[in-house]
Amino acid sequence: MKTLKIIKIGGNIIDDQKALSNFLEQFAQLEGPKVLVHGGGKLASKLANQMRVPVRMYEGRRITDSDTLDIITMVYAGKINKSIVAQLQAHHCNAIGFTGADGNTIVSNKRPTIPIDFGFVGDIKTVDTSALELLLVNRITPVFCAITHDENGQLLNTNADTIASELAIGFAKTFETELYYCFEKNGVLENVTDDNSVIERINTETYQTLIEQNIIADGMLPKLTNCFNAVNHNVSKVCIGKPDMLFDSKSIYTTIQK
Amino acid sequence: MKTLKIIKIGGNIIDDQKALSNFLEQFAQLEGPKVLVHGGGKLASKLANQMRVPVRMYEGRRITDSDTLDIITMVYAGKINKSIVAQLQAHHCNAIGFTGADGNTIVSNKRPTIPIDFGFVGDIKTVDTSALELLLVNRITPVFCAITHDENGQLLNTNADTIASELAIGFAKTFETELYYCFEKNGVLENVTDDNSVIERINTETYQTLIEQNIIADGMLPKLTNCFNAVNHNVSKVCIGKPDMLFDSKSIYTTIQK
Repeated sequence: MKTLKIIKIGGNIIDDQKALSNFLEQFAQLEGPKVLVHGGGKLASKLANQMRVPVRMYEGRRITDSDTLDIITMVYAGKINKSIVAQLQAHHCNAIGFTGADGNTIVSNKRPTIPIDFGFVGDIKTVDTSALELLLVNRITPVFCAITHDENGQLLNTNADTIASELAIGFAKTFETELYYCFEKNGVLENVTDDNSVIERINTETYQTLIEQNIIADGMLPKLTNCFNAVNHNVSKVCIGKPDMLFDSKSIYTTIQK
Repeated sequence: MKTLKIIKIGGNIIDDQKALSNFLEQFAQLEGPKVLVHGGGKLASKLANQMRVPVRMYEGRRITDSDTLDIITMVYAGKINKSIVAQLQAHHCNAIGFTGADGNTIVSNKRPTIPIDFGFVGDIKTVDTSALELLLVNRITPVFCAITHDENGQLLNTNADTIASELAIGFAKTFETELYYCFEKNGVLENVTDDNSVIERINTETYQTLIEQNIIADGMLPKLTNCFNAVNHNVSKVCIGKPDMLFDSKSIYTTIQK
C-alpha cells in the first residue's frame, strides 16, 4: 500500500457547510489510501440548547453526562458523520463511517472521576486497525468521529486530535503513515497575531526551544503533544495548517518530524 | 460461506432496553454470517417533541421534512445504531454500523412528490453488497439502520422491512440467504386475537387464498409483500415471528417459501 494519510478536520470546517463541501470535494480526489477524522463543532451545543440539556464545561472542556453523551453520539456519529459519508459518495469516494466501537477499532477507559469527573469521556487504551486495513486495501475510506467504547457496551466521548494521532500510530506499525491536522491557521506561528509567521519545520530539539521561548503555549501545547507522540511512534511526519496544505503544493504550513 | 441470515428487528425490541439487551446477547452467539437490520421505534418522535419539531403523518406514514430527516439520522444512525454496535462488541460479536450511504450499499430515489409529498423518503434503486461481503467473510457483522442515500449527497429515510428484503435479495445472488422478520407476534395468525393460531407455512398458492379470505390484511399486507418479493428473488425462506424463532428450536413461527 502507498503512503497512508490520516487527516483530521475540526470545527472551523464542520460548522461551515460551504467550507466542508469544498473540502470533501478535494479530499475525495486525493490519491492513495486515506482516513478522515472529524471533530464535532458547535452543532452538539446547539442541539443541547434545543433539548434544554445544560452544557457544562470545566476549564474549556466539556463534561459529558449521560444526556450529553446521547447528544454527542447523535450529532457526531449520526448527523455529521453520515452527511460526510453521503457527500464523499457523491464525489465517487467510497466511504464508511466509524466510531471506535465499529470494528472494535478504538477501546478506551472511562477517565477516572478524581480530581474532576468529566463523565463519559474515554482515554484511549488500544487501537486495532485490522478492520480499517481491510477496507483501505479495497479502496474504501474510513470516516471517523470522536467516539470510542469501553468493550462493555459503553460509548465514550474522546478527543478527535488524540483519535487521529492514535490511529496514525496504530497504522504506522504496518504502513508508511502521515498525519495532517487541518485547523484555522496556516500552522504553528512564531507570532500568534501574524498568520504569515509560520514555523515551517519543528523537530524534537527546536520544539523544546519553542516551549522555553513561550512561542508554543496554551491550545497549541496539547496539539503539539499529539504530534510528537505520533512522530515518536513511527509516524513519518505530522503536518499542521489549513486544508490547502493537502491540495496545493505551494501552500505553507508546519511539518513536524522527529 | 455458510447460509447467511438477514435479521430485522422493529420498534417493540428497540424501545425496550431490556428486551434489546437480551436479544443482542443471543444474536451475538448465533453461528454463521449474519446481518442485523433495525427500525427506529419511538425515540425519533420523542426527540422531535423535545426539539419542538412537529411530527407529521399521512395515513400512518411519517412525512420526512428536512428537520425530521436530521432527527432520524441522529437517532437511527447515531444513538440506536452505535448503541447496538457497542453492545454487540461487549458480547464479542465484531460489528460495524451501516446506513445505505456507507460502502455505497443502498442507493434510493427520492419518492415522487405526487400524489403525496412524503419529503426525504427513498425508494430503493440498487443494492451493492460487495463491502458487506468483505466484512462478512472476515467475521464482521454489519448492523443496518433504515437510512439510504441518492448518490448525490442526500440521505433518505427508507422502510426498514424493505431494506431487509432488498439486502437479502442482493445477497441471494451469491449466497444461500434466509430472511427473518422479528416482530411482536408469533407469526402470521389465522385469528388476529389468538397468538396461538400461527400459520406455520405459507407459499405462493396459500398466500392468495389467505388474502381472499381476508386473513392477511392491513399491516400484514406490506410485510408479506416484502416476504414474497424476497422468496421470488432467490431468498431461500423468510421467517416471521418473535425473536425466539432464531434461538429456540421448539418455537412456533411462520415460514414463507415460494
